[in-house]
Amino acid sequence: MDDRETLIRLDDETSDDDAPTAAQKEMGQSSKPIQDFGVNQSEDPSCSSSGRGAPRISGNNHLIDDDQSLLLGNNTSPIAPEIPINGGSNGNINNSEPIFHLRSRTAAASTPNYESLDYEVCENTLFQEEERKRLTERFSLRKDVIRWIIFIQIGIITALIACTIDIIIEELSERKYTFLFNAVQKNVPLSDSSTGDLVIPYLYWLLFSILPVAFGAAMVTYIEPITAGSGIPQVKSYLNGVKIPRIVRIKTLAVKAIGVITSVVGGLAGGKEGPMIHAGAVVAAGISQGKSTTFVKDFRVFKAFRDDHEKRDFVLGGGAAGVSAAFGAPIGGMLFSLEEAASFWNQNLIWRTLVASIISVFTLNIVLSAYHGLNDFTFTGLFNLGKFDTPLKFDYFELPIFMILGVTGGLLGAAWNSLNTKINKFRKRFIPWKIGKVIEAVVVAMLGVTLACLMIYFINDCRPLGNDPTNNPVQLFCEDNEYNAVAALWFQTPEATVRSLFHDPPGSHKILTLALFTVVYYVLSCATFGLNVSLGVFIPTALVGAAWGRLLAMLTYYMFPQAEFLHPGKYALIGAAANLGGVLRMTISLSVILMETTGVESSFFFPLIIALITAKWVGDYFNEGIYDTQIQVNHVPMLTWEPLPQYKGLKAHDILSSPVVCIKLRDSAHYIYKMLKKCDHNGFPVVDNVHGDRRSEGRVCGIILRSQLIVILLKSLYVENKRFWLPETSIQTFRDVYPRYPSIKSVRKLDDKINYTVDLSMFMNPSPVRVNPHDSVPRIFQIFRALGLRHLLVINNENRIAGIITRRDFIYK
Amino acid sequence: MDDRETLIRLDDETSDDDAPTAAQKEMGQSSKPIQDFGVNQSEDPSCSSSGRGAPRISGNNHLIDDDQSLLLGNNTSPIAPEIPINGGSNGNINNSEPIFHLRSRTAAASTPNYESLDYEVCENTLFQEEERKRLTERFSLRKDVIRWIIFIQIGIITALIACTIDIIIEELSERKYTFLFNAVQKNVPLSDSSTGDLVIPYLYWLLFSILPVAFGAAMVTYIEPITAGSGIPQVKSYLNGVKIPRIVRIKTLAVKAIGVITSVVGGLAGGKEGPMIHAGAVVAAGISQGKSTTFVKDFRVFKAFRDDHEKRDFVLGGGAAGVSAAFGAPIGGMLFSLEEAASFWNQNLIWRTLVASIISVFTLNIVLSAYHGLNDFTFTGLFNLGKFDTPLKFDYFELPIFMILGVTGGLLGAAWNSLNTKINKFRKRFIPWKIGKVIEAVVVAMLGVTLACLMIYFINDCRPLGNDPTNNPVQLFCEDNEYNAVAALWFQTPEATVRSLFHDPPGSHKILTLALFTVVYYVLSCATFGLNVSLGVFIPTALVGAAWGRLLAMLTYYMFPQAEFLHPGKYALIGAAANLGGVLRMTISLSVILMETTGVESSFFFPLIIALITAKWVGDYFNEGIYDTQIQVNHVPMLTWEPLPQYKGLKAHDILSSPVVCIKLRDSAHYIYKMLKKCDHNGFPVVDNVHGDRRSEGRVCGIILRSQLIVILLKSLYVENKRFWLPETSIQTFRDVYPRYPSIKSVRKLDDKINYTVDLSMFMNPSPVRVNPHDSVPRIFQIFRALGLRHLLVINNENRIAGIITRRDFIYK
Repeated sequence: MDDRETLIRLDDETSDDDAPTAAQKEMGQSSKPIQDFGVNQSEDPSCSSSGRGAPRISGNNHLIDDDQSLLLGNNTSPIAPEIPINGGSNGNINNSEPIFHLRSRTAAASTPNYESLDYEVCENTLFQEEERKRLTERFSLRKDVIRWIIFIQIGIITALIACTIDIIIEELSERKYTFLFNAVQKNVPLSDSSTGDLVIPYLYWLLFSILPVAFGAAMVTYIEPITAGSGIPQVKSYLNGVKIPRIVRIKTLAVKAIGVITSVVGGLAGGKEGPMIHAGAVVAAGISQGKSTTFVKDFRVFKAFRDDHEKRDFVLGGGAAGVSAAFGAPIGGMLFSLEEAASFWNQNLIWRTLVASIISVFTLNIVLSAYHGLNDFTFTGLFNLGKFDTPLKFDYFELPIFMILGVTGGLLGAAWNSLNTKINKFRKRFIPWKIGKVIEAVVVAMLGVTLACLMIYFINDCRPLGNDPTNNPVQLFCEDNEYNAVAALWFQTPEATVRSLFHDPPGSHKILTLALFTVVYYVLSCATFGLNVSLGVFIPTALVGAAWGRLLAMLTYYMFPQAEFLHPGKYALIGAAANLGGVLRMTISLSVILMETTGVESSFFFPLIIALITAKWVGDYFNEGIYDTQIQVNHVPMLTWEPLPQYKGLKAHDILSSPVVCIKLRDSAHYIYKMLKKCDHNGFPVVDNVHGDRRSEGRVCGIILRSQLIVILLKSLYVENKRFWLPETSIQTFRDVYPRYPSIKSVRKLDDKINYTVDLSMFMNPSPVRVNPHDSVPRIFQIFRALGLRHLLVINNENRIAGIITRRDFIYK
Repeated sequence: MDDRETLIRLDDETSDDDAPTAAQKEMGQSSKPIQDFGVNQSEDPSCSSSGRGAPRISGNNHLIDDDQSLLLGNNTSPIAPEIPINGGSNGNINNSEPIFHLRSRTAAASTPNYESLDYEVCENTLFQEEERKRLTERFSLRKDVIRWIIFIQIGIITALIACTIDIIIEELSERKYTFLFNAVQKNVPLSDSSTGDLVIPYLYWLLFSILPVAFGAAMVTYIEPITAGSGIPQVKSYLNGVKIPRIVRIKTLAVKAIGVITSVVGGLAGGKEGPMIHAGAVVAAGISQGKSTTFVKDFRVFKAFRDDHEKRDFVLGGGAAGVSAAFGAPIGGMLFSLEEAASFWNQNLIWRTLVASIISVFTLNIVLSAYHGLNDFTFTGLFNLGKFDTPLKFDYFELPIFMILGVTGGLLGAAWNSLNTKINKFRKRFIPWKIGKVIEAVVVAMLGVTLACLMIYFINDCRPLGNDPTNNPVQLFCEDNEYNAVAALWFQTPEATVRSLFHDPPGSHKILTLALFTVVYYVLSCATFGLNVSLGVFIPTALVGAAWGRLLAMLTYYMFPQAEFLHPGKYALIGAAANLGGVLRMTISLSVILMETTGVESSFFFPLIIALITAKWVGDYFNEGIYDTQIQVNHVPMLTWEPLPQYKGLKAHDILSSPVVCIKLRDSAHYIYKMLKKCDHNGFPVVDNVHGDRRSEGRVCGIILRSQLIVILLKSLYVENKRFWLPETSIQTFRDVYPRYPSIKSVRKLDDKINYTVDLSMFMNPSPVRVNPHDSVPRIFQIFRALGLRHLLVINNENRIAGIITRRDFIYK
């Protein structure tokens, strides 16, 4: 504690100036017994409870121990020694309002209060009892088999949900655009540029955009705001170990599904892929737990999987199944979850994830085949972005061109990310009201429709009918036997437009059309991502990329008409890859997904990855990928792969939080109750060898979580009535209340049990990971991350607590 | 120490019976100061030095501390208390021959003595100084850029080596089989079954098999035995953290390359793929170190990467580049190293590995295009197993058939593994002589030729010329305008036979031919893998699978001639996948590799993975994959993904080794020298707060490696002459001797420096990972594996050493 700017002050206690010395003596870890301050103080722990004028301290920090160590003076303040603190002041503890000023937490003060997940398995006595039972081969096998069954179920159900979303979007969009097509045909005089009657289709179009978008935005805003956006950053944070409230609930899934349908049908510049990944994650979390909190229903199955650690693995599988279902790309799905989402990884997990992905794609394929009319039961694969019929080939001299496309993608992507972040910051600052968010979504939708109409109106791009690549070739302002190529781009879902850009024969578009379209869509997609609607960023990004990729090929061909290698579809694909690389900064999974969704040959993998890598390198020079940017903007305490550069050279004692609230191995129920009331920390070191109540001087023998303590109090697991609960208490007692542990408020006052004792030896985790204050931060970061820890105890050479390190300590400095 | 069968005896010390008590007291961790036993004893550490009648203890075990704790009685022996041990027995320590009997090490006694690699980065003061220098952004960037350059170089050079091997094998095989073809044409009378003249081609064939095989086997056996086999198990062990001597030397690479060329040309049932992976690993290790021990040449580049941790990442990249070059499959290569080889993993690494793979494939493609005559600079991809021209399709009802193929593959694969293991055990036992190993290889080669000739002679399988799929259609015993289909199978390299089985038109083979071929090749490949030649197992396994896959399709078609879906090539592919799954037990990477090498569409990924998964599940029921089996048979202490089942429920104190040899933070050079002479342990805890010489009672403050101590002694880094070495000593001083640290024998006696002192605070790793004796084994296993540790210190509640855990403690019980 010596060299840290620690300032902890009790405002309204009169005996304050006496206190710090005793506390400081305690911090100095003197091991000889010193005087007991009496039981009363020990039963009234004060803590950094939130609010009340003091800077907000994040929940899982451990700042304060018993009363004695609570009172820590600023190092410079003169302190009179040797006077016992707080003598006889039993009762006025509620008035104490400590003010903390810990250097390592100043940045954290203003950020939202995310909790961590407990990815560390608590191997307490109860857990080990269960393990012993499981040592009989049969039980172990059964748990493994059940795990496989769950993964298969995840694949199937995720695919069914994806199908449903898919089909509804397709049906509704089809109707919407057919209606608009008819409206145009009826109202616009042929080959005549009198504008009068384009107004009616325009109004219809507006109506069909505003209604669904407003509905979707309202649902997202008023019912479940967590469903806004693609959901991938949230799933990624969850898998990294950050608890995002309500992220994996069924209600979230329902809102997300409706949200994505309405937004895509409404014509916003977004895709359904991100939400499907989120949907997969929800399905996985739901199925694996065998109960639903939304419907207050416990199916009494899969009870053994009710902890954060198991749930994480299922969520990873669900995410992969979601990607696979969204793109029809099983390997791509698995790689996506590995590359983008997974923070922890092992061989068995990769293996189950792959099975979930495959089952998902297969289910999707069967259902969609049935929907489109089965043709002779042949599996054809899903090519969501359309199959390239002729194998794409490339010459070696095209590689530099692919690299140039990659550089372009990197630059445009970095600019997009930066612009989008600025828009979202602006939005956050100036549109705080809920209704404003809905209106904003509607405005963006209207803007899209208006820009599209203006483009259709002002650009004269008529193509002969015959090789018309769209379903609804609008004749709008064109001669007979011609269709309007601009309208063709706009009169379909973004996914269909990507397909058009990939597969339309050369010469389907004018350069001007495509250039304007690229610019408009670039701006639109940038304005859309961050709206309070459920939409992904994959398809619009691919669309922008495909547009400028095709455009570049057309421009080059225009300049060098002898360059026959400039197949516009090929360059659209490379452009899409480059733009995706520039925005998302993924490489392997994206290239595999693009391969799987377009059916190109594996030899074409090479140009794709060249473009992606170049784009990523160029983009990384400027900023981070869009998902990571979103995570940063939201101040989610996500652990990166490597420690942050500013932590290099630091030691554990530079970042730890102290003093720490400890609990004795056998402590009074009253103390625990009071402490839980006062503190909102989530983990408490368990100590023994305590002299009196100087808990922070004891030797560390374990760690216990807040949730476990609450369960102990709720179920009255006291030493005094041990004979009642001991036979029926098992690890399942604690799992049953997972994942929504009751708060301490649900524990009623301990009137008659005030003198009862809790023996934690059975419940605590006896093997917390411990480090020394002199260990280097990069090293403990590696430990913390590799093991997925929530709390890391810093102990001194005598095994006494020196501080505690949590996720936040690695992120804010 | 209480409940362990510890028996440590000093044979020829008279004062023995006094000793154990003091030692046991010491084990009891009494913390009050006890009497000093004088300096003299402390300078004569005894240790479990190897041989000399005592059971062999593996090198990185820590069994014994200073003299005092050396003498540990069996628990049941009566011991007189309170008498100081070894008083004044200064000088007779060299006679002491301790006998150890530690329960946790009994199994280890008979196994080969593998050391661990230091994947844990030693963050000592010198390292941190370097880190501080690196904090200036420019240096950090430079190191990163250099790392990329190395990975790119690895890709290119691996590909060039692979090309060379490829081309030489192709040229030589072509010549061999053309010669044999001519010999057959000249000597065998047409459509006449008189056998007389088949003898001459047979003898030629024998000659062309025996010569190269004998040469290759002799090279492998006499020059570098580590090059036997595919090399994948060795690379896998290396990446897991086990030091396999001479695995990544240039000499090894040279022998391996010649070995694989001779064996494949000699016609042994093996492939060149495994050796190429090994070649990639050697290339990676060589380039990244910028020096070669074989050529005693230091290029003075890439000096910052000279430690095990950095080298591991490069070797992973090299392995991936090797797979990619072997198969022309970049994604497959990356996935292969992830699935099969990598024990540690992070995002940046996956990313660099992929780049190395892509560069490798691209280089290979350019060189091979140039070799085969460039056609208009178009990149076509490499389809080593031949491209399926018509897209493979499948119907839903074929899925059960694929599963049946998978089950067959699993059964055949498990049987193959088991049979191969038995053959190898037999071989190990009955063929210990080097010349015997060479002869054995020759005998197997002769057996192969003989069986092939018998098949050709006895089976009459003539096909009309015209759609002849082979280059040398032998007319052997056939009519004019016909060729011998049996000879066609045998008169080419195994790789070419796989190609034939995949792509030959339906009806190219007789059922009997294929059935016999399958049986013969199954047995041959089983006898071949484990011979002292450099050969991989991938191609023969794929070949056997393709053969029975095609066979099953033909049989079924024979029974149900209306089943037109039974495309034999498709079923050969599925059969190959199933057989590979059954033998190798990989799934994802295999399916991707098969996809990439045959150019099938991604929709066909589904049946491949179904067959692979089924095969793996069935096979796993019986035994492990062939690589893991090989690793087990060789007693390589490889850490599995999960702790072994028998370790469940154990605590750290059940598996730790103690007592531990400790060193004081400031210790005498003489003690260190003597200790290194006596012990062959590789890591020593550094302690301070030592009362006199009771080192094992000190408080742990770090750990130091044997190699570091030797460097300290060699370079005379003593406190007394600090002013000479301090300015020029850096972490590079230690890296310069990497990877072949000199042995203690190269340190000359410390005659004039006998009283010098070594201060370890600058050199030791101050942050060793520490656990408590009560921590559960699965948990510490997780820590050990996730962090890639070599030594794990077990400390008691007072931070004093209780024991040490190394890799071996998790494997042998």
